[in-house]
Amino acid sequence: MTQPAHGTHTLETAMRRALDLAAQGPAHGPNPRVGCVLLTPDGRAVAEGYHRGAGTPHAEAAALDAARAAGVDPRGTTAVVTLEPCAHHGRTGPCADALIGAGVAAVHVSVPDPHPVATGGAARLRAAGIEVTVGTLAADGEELLRPWLHAVRTGRPWVTLKLATSLDGRVAAADGTSRWITGDAARAHAHTVRARVDAIAVGSGTVAADDPALTARTPEGALAGHQPLRVVLGTRPVPDGARLHGPGGPLLHLPTRDLDAALRELGEREVRHLLVEGGPTVATALLAADAVDELHAYVAPVLLGAGAGAVADLGVTTVGDAARFTTRSVTRLGDDVLLVARRRAPSAECPDRPATQPATQPAQEEI
Amino acid sequence: MTQPAHGTHTLETAMRRALDLAAQGPAHGPNPRVGCVLLTPDGRAVAEGYHRGAGTPHAEAAALDAARAAGVDPRGTTAVVTLEPCAHHGRTGPCADALIGAGVAAVHVSVPDPHPVATGGAARLRAAGIEVTVGTLAADGEELLRPWLHAVRTGRPWVTLKLATSLDGRVAAADGTSRWITGDAARAHAHTVRARVDAIAVGSGTVAADDPALTARTPEGALAGHQPLRVVLGTRPVPDGARLHGPGGPLLHLPTRDLDAALRELGEREVRHLLVEGGPTVATALLAADAVDELHAYVAPVLLGAGAGAVADLGVTTVGDAARFTTRSVTRLGDDVLLVARRRAPSAECPDRPATQPATQPAQEEI
Repeated sequence: MTQPAHGTHTLETAMRRALDLAAQGPAHGPNPRVGCVLLTPDGRAVAEGYHRGAGTPHAEAAALDAARAAGVDPRGTTAVVTLEPCAHHGRTGPCADALIGAGVAAVHVSVPDPHPVATGGAARLRAAGIEVTVGTLAADGEELLRPWLHAVRTGRPWVTLKLATSLDGRVAAADGTSRWITGDAARAHAHTVRARVDAIAVGSGTVAADDPALTARTPEGALAGHQPLRVVLGTRPVPDGARLHGPGGPLLHLPTRDLDAALRELGEREVRHLLVEGGPTVATALLAADAVDELHAYVAPVLLGAGAGAVADLGVTTVGDAARFTTRSVTRLGDDVLLVARRRAPSAECPDRPATQPATQPAQEEI
Repeated sequence: MTQPAHGTHTLETAMRRALDLAAQGPAHGPNPRVGCVLLTPDGRAVAEGYHRGAGTPHAEAAALDAARAAGVDPRGTTAVVTLEPCAHHGRTGPCADALIGAGVAAVHVSVPDPHPVATGGAARLRAAGIEVTVGTLAADGEELLRPWLHAVRTGRPWVTLKLATSLDGRVAAADGTSRWITGDAARAHAHTVRARVDAIAVGSGTVAADDPALTARTPEGALAGHQPLRVVLGTRPVPDGARLHGPGGPLLHLPTRDLDAALRELGEREVRHLLVEGGPTVATALLAADAVDELHAYVAPVLLGAGAGAVADLGVTTVGDAARFTTRSVTRLGDDVLLVARRRAPSAECPDRPATQPATQPAQEEI
C-alpha cells in the first residue's frame, strides 16, 4: 500500500469527518452513504461533501463543487473519501473521472467498492497517476455501510428481524392480544428504524390477523418523511380493506413460500435493508434458514405464561445448536430493553464480519 | 418535624456518608445495614462507624467507640444515622441508651425502625431531651434496606426471582440441556447475587432434574465467604447423593406445597432476602401468587424455538392482565443483558415503593 502523503493522524481525523458527513445522508435508498473531505498539501480541510440520496451529486462531486463555490482550486488537494470512488456512468458521471479532471493529487479511501458496476475507481485513479490508499478506518467504514455492502455482495437485502416480546418470549397473550406488550419508548424507537430501512416485511398470516399499517410514524403519529416499501410474504391474499392499502409506502405482495426467492427478488429491486416484523411463522422460517443478519429484540418486563411465542420450532434440539447471536448494543427504552445482535460469523477467522458471509443454507422454509 | 441543628447541606452530606458506610456492611444476615457519622456543633465529621453483622457493635456504638479511640468526646455531637437507633437489649445494649449516655445533642435518622422489638428509639431519645429528626434522604435509606424492611414489615423474605432465558423465553432446549444459555459474565454476576442473599430456593423437581449445588462461587470457582441457606421447596425427597449435601450453606427442605407457609417459615428463621432460582414450577407458583418482589432476568441473544419456558400458565388470558414489573436497571453482561425489575405497586399512590406493600393474594399454589 502506498504511504499517505499526510500523517496518519491527519488522515484519520479527515476520514472520521468524512464518515460523519456520510452518516448525514439517508440510510435508505439504493445508493451507499458516502462522505468526502478535501485536504490541502499542508493538511487543512478546505471543502467537504456527502451524498444526499439517489439523483443528487456523489460525495466527491459535492466536495469539489463546495471547493469551487468557496473559491478554492481543488488542484493538488487530497481527497479523503469513505468509499472507493465509482468508475461508472450512472445518473451522474464517474467520480474517479471527476477527481482526475479536478487534478487532485491523492485519494484515500476507507472501503473498496464491491459493486460490480461501480467498482474500478481506484485502478482508474492510479492509471491517471494519482496516489491511492484503501483501508483507513476500514472497520468504521464497513460498519456505516453494513446493510448496503451486504446487499451488494450477496444480492439479497440485509435482514433485520424485529421481535417485541415479554420476558417469557411471547408476542401475544392467550387471547391473541398484543397491544401493548412493549411501551411507548420502544414503539417510538421501532418507528425510527422503519424510517431508516428500504422495506418492511410481514407474513400474509399477520396481515390477516393484525391488519398492520407498516408505516413509519413520528412520535406525534404523523407519517415520517420516508416510507419504506411494504412487503407481504406468503400466499394468503391481502384483503381489499387492509390498512396496507392506506397511506404509506408502496405495497408489494410476493405470493411465494420460497423465502430465498423472495429475498433475491427484493435484492434485484435494490432493497438494501429489509426489516421483518413478523409474525412468528416468517421469523421462524428466516431463522431456520439462517437468513437473519441482525436481531432487534425489544423485551418488556412482563410475564404472560401463555400465548404465541416469538418463534416456533427451529429444529434445535440441544442447547449447543441454538441460534446464537453476538450482541452489538443494549439500550434501555423506558421499562423495556432493546438488544441489538448480529448473526455469528460462520468462521472464527472473521468474528466481526458475520454479515459479509452469504447464508450457507437455502432459505426455502414455508412462510 | 424538628429543624436540624445543622444546615440541610451538611446533614445530607453526612447522611450520604452514613449510607455509604452502611453499604459496607454485609447485605445478608438478620440485622439491617446501618451507618453512623458524628458531627461537631460546627458541622465537622469527627467519627463514623457501621454495623459489620450480627454479634458485632451496632453502627452508633461503633461510631462512639471510634470517637473515644480518637480522643474525641462525643458529648454535644450530632449523630447522623441511617436507621432509627434501636431501643432493645439484643446481643448488644440499646443504641438509644448508648447515645443518651454519651451525651449527644441531636440525632438525625433516615429511616424509622419498623422492627417490632427494636422500634421506639426515637421516642426514647426525645424523652431524654435529645433533638431527633427522621427522614433525611429517606428514599436512599429505604432503598439500601429494601429486603430487610420488607421482611420486617411483612414477616416474609424479600423474594428475588432469577430467570436465565433465551430471547424466546426458554430455560432449556428440547432435550432438557440448559448449560449454558447465558454466558460467563451472567453466571459470574448471578454468583455475586447468591453471595448477597440469605437463602436460595429451588423446587424439589429441579433438584431431581438438575442436581444443583446452589453455592456462591468466585469467578475462579472457589466457595465465596458467605454461603446462603439452601432451601428446597416441594414434596419430592432430596436424593442422598445430591450435590446439595456437599460443601455450601446449610440445607433446609420444606416439604410443603403451601408457598405462603414456606415463606412465613423462612421469615420466622430471619431469612430477609430469598433468591429463587427455579424451576418453572416454583417460578410460576410465585408469580401467580404475586409473591415476586424483584425479577433478575438474564437474557441471552439466543433463540431455541422449543424447550421448557421460564414460566408456565399464570392464568393470564389477555395482555392487560400480564404480570408487569417496573424496570430498575438494565446491565449488559457480555453478550447477555440483565434486567432488574420490581413488582408494580398495587396502588398508584406509591409507584416507587412496590416492596413495602404486603402481598394482596394468598400464595398457596402447588409448587
